[in-house]
Amino acid sequence: MTPKMKPRIYKGTRDFLPEQMIKRNFVIDTVKDVFEKFGFEPLETPTLELWETLSGKYGDEGDRLTYRFTDRGKREVGLRYDLTVPLARVMAMYPEISKPFKRYQIQPVWRADKPQKGRFREFYQCDIDVIGSSSMLADAEIISAIHEILVILGFRRFEMRINSRKILSGIVQVAGIESEKETEVARSIDKMDKIGREGVRKELKETGFSDKQLNIIFDILDITGTNREKLVETATILKDSESGMMGIQEMSDLFEFLREYNIPEENIHFDLFLARGLDYYTGPIFETVVREPKIGSITGGGRYDRLIGIFSGNDQPATGCSIGLERIVTVMDELGMFPGNLKTKVQVLVTIFDEGGIHYSISLAGILRQAGIYTELYTGSAKLRGQFGLANDRSIPLVLIAGPDEREKNMVTLKNMMTGEQQTIKKTDLVQEVRAEIASLHKVRGKS
Amino acid sequence: MTPKMKPRIYKGTRDFLPEQMIKRNFVIDTVKDVFEKFGFEPLETPTLELWETLSGKYGDEGDRLTYRFTDRGKREVGLRYDLTVPLARVMAMYPEISKPFKRYQIQPVWRADKPQKGRFREFYQCDIDVIGSSSMLADAEIISAIHEILVILGFRRFEMRINSRKILSGIVQVAGIESEKETEVARSIDKMDKIGREGVRKELKETGFSDKQLNIIFDILDITGTNREKLVETATILKDSESGMMGIQEMSDLFEFLREYNIPEENIHFDLFLARGLDYYTGPIFETVVREPKIGSITGGGRYDRLIGIFSGNDQPATGCSIGLERIVTVMDELGMFPGNLKTKVQVLVTIFDEGGIHYSISLAGILRQAGIYTELYTGSAKLRGQFGLANDRSIPLVLIAGPDEREKNMVTLKNMMTGEQQTIKKTDLVQEVRAEIASLHKVRGKS
Repeated sequence: MTPKMKPRIYKGTRDFLPEQMIKRNFVIDTVKDVFEKFGFEPLETPTLELWETLSGKYGDEGDRLTYRFTDRGKREVGLRYDLTVPLARVMAMYPEISKPFKRYQIQPVWRADKPQKGRFREFYQCDIDVIGSSSMLADAEIISAIHEILVILGFRRFEMRINSRKILSGIVQVAGIESEKETEVARSIDKMDKIGREGVRKELKETGFSDKQLNIIFDILDITGTNREKLVETATILKDSESGMMGIQEMSDLFEFLREYNIPEENIHFDLFLARGLDYYTGPIFETVVREPKIGSITGGGRYDRLIGIFSGNDQPATGCSIGLERIVTVMDELGMFPGNLKTKVQVLVTIFDEGGIHYSISLAGILRQAGIYTELYTGSAKLRGQFGLANDRSIPLVLIAGPDEREKNMVTLKNMMTGEQQTIKKTDLVQEVRAEIASLHKVRGKS
Repeated sequence: MTPKMKPRIYKGTRDFLPEQMIKRNFVIDTVKDVFEKFGFEPLETPTLELWETLSGKYGDEGDRLTYRFTDRGKREVGLRYDLTVPLARVMAMYPEISKPFKRYQIQPVWRADKPQKGRFREFYQCDIDVIGSSSMLADAEIISAIHEILVILGFRRFEMRINSRKILSGIVQVAGIESEKETEVARSIDKMDKIGREGVRKELKETGFSDKQLNIIFDILDITGTNREKLVETATILKDSESGMMGIQEMSDLFEFLREYNIPEENIHFDLFLARGLDYYTGPIFETVVREPKIGSITGGGRYDRLIGIFSGNDQPATGCSIGLERIVTVMDELGMFPGNLKTKVQVLVTIFDEGGIHYSISLAGILRQAGIYTELYTGSAKLRGQFGLANDRSIPLVLIAGPDEREKNMVTLKNMMTGEQQTIKKTDLVQEVRAEIASLHKVRGKS
């Protein structure tokens, strides 16, 4: 053992103490439950991957930002950087997985970056993907699952922005721009939220596109109306572009499916300005923006039919989405969106009145736990006042006290810490009375 | 993107495909649920810790087996090696945590070791600890929680072995051995299961202990009888050792508490031979051994009152236990202890009969998901036969088919893949009928 020292945490990483854990688990459990209801299956891959697996998959910046080192056997390894490359590796290594394969994956990833406010070196990602289906039904499943999650978590005014890389190709084509420059156009349009419409136009002009080309592009991007109206008008302009018309057909199918899933029209926004800069998208792209309050994008994804084959050489159609778990937890916390008391899961603290009462308290805790009630039995050395202090500190709502009188009569006093009320009840009525108090707590707190 | 290559996994790590994940989650969810019922709160600490935090805490071997590297900012960091040192760091950094603090932590750890069968470089650990209580009630809470978990998971013939490092000190003392040599004695006794009683005796003799000393030690270790009888007889011999008598008192309290928790006597075994080699234990030590079949120790822990202070300098009483999660999953798998179908969580596959039936199938899936039924909607391009193949491959028990006839009459055919029976039902009865089939599946499968 080394001598004592002031311990520090590695910058950009976090300890999650119980209160944060309970909030994080609330979100993760909700997400998992919806995914599983939609038939997505869980997958986990190792933290350590051979460097040859990660190398070159995330561009130069990714190579730079991947934590990597050489192990004692001189093998180069890296820490998981995202959840998509591991998925591609899994699909290549286990061809026996039956398709379409719908998987979800919730694990931490690492970035060797300078930590900043809200940006961490170690953080959770949460992805769902469907591998092996080129049907828009797969995209609709993903968008619907995400929609349901956001509604259940309590998000009300949000907008799922959807566009198509094929339509963007069509636009670039009818503007007379070489298809190799499509990613450049996409990357500029992607900055719309940051630099505005004029900024994008300026940037594209500086890149070398002509006013005529930019006019054609912006005439299409500026089309207004309902999703359907926009689709019809865009289709008229793109009628000579094969790629563009395939995009129109896909969007048309997708919107129709989403109606069938009962997703409110006002939450689906056909957004011609949505570009998502990454060059691996091949079909629909989507992200979710919460409008009120303005908190930016909390999910993002799209179809990427040419990525899963990087290891196997066999392309497979694929579509997927990342949920910004960390962002959602932060936003829900700031906006007070978490229901009731999430400081602790403990519902009842059983105090120890005196040494002679330990056995009685053990039996009370046993009865409650048997009934599935989250019960803390006091194990410290404080007197009753200190035990109430612990209940306060940890926001435990109910406290049981059994002094010699109560014990002799097989009774116990139940105190509600929220209202301050207390009652002495029979030990045989314990579960029933505690359940009633728990139910009343939920009523008082509502569901916010 | 690099050219295609045959992808490999880093040796000693694993992918957990859905079937394994569902089994692992079954165990983890059970464990978490019991922990929470017992008032333990969740904690997570980062994967990356500063090397100064880990260095020297696990002995020379630990230093050697910790994955460590230097980050881009020239800081030395290491990967989490266990869950106890991070807990000690947390207790030092957040003095505001109210005590007794009962926490559980389930996270992967890493060992830069040669991988062998059943030993991995990346694996999960699962710990519960109580910090800030010197009462045997804390130890009893831990032992009871573990006991309940094992019973719920389906372990029947198992034995929780309990001993006391204070009693061992007493034995060493009455044998006239210097207290500095206690750890040596403990390490030898710890090998009992591997090298047998005579092996231990031989090893201790070679270490330099006299026959007289060894006779005293083994006379005590060989005491037989019920837990109570052993305690009484040991107490007679240790009556002049202060430490020994404190140990006797602690064991006596602990056994009494455990009776109060209704733990069957036959599952608790006061085992004077249990030593647990690590030198940081200070009080009760415990482990669980499954007797039939013989699978060795699946949990281990004890009281360590002088470890939590390594960073703060302030010792705090502490007791805890590790559950061998990986071992438990493996054993349960080998012995077929997992209930029913854990290959998938999906209960129903909604097929797509033909292109015209997509909308109808979407609405069926929507109804089922709304009712909380885990539902896969087929998103691939196979005909009905291929869709049934997917249900078979993934062991999905129920399949829905809606051809044009059924759709016109607002009906649907429900096929039970286990029995082969099928029935055509009204769409309005869908949830009810599917629930009835799911209930009947559980009956057929039983709980094994």
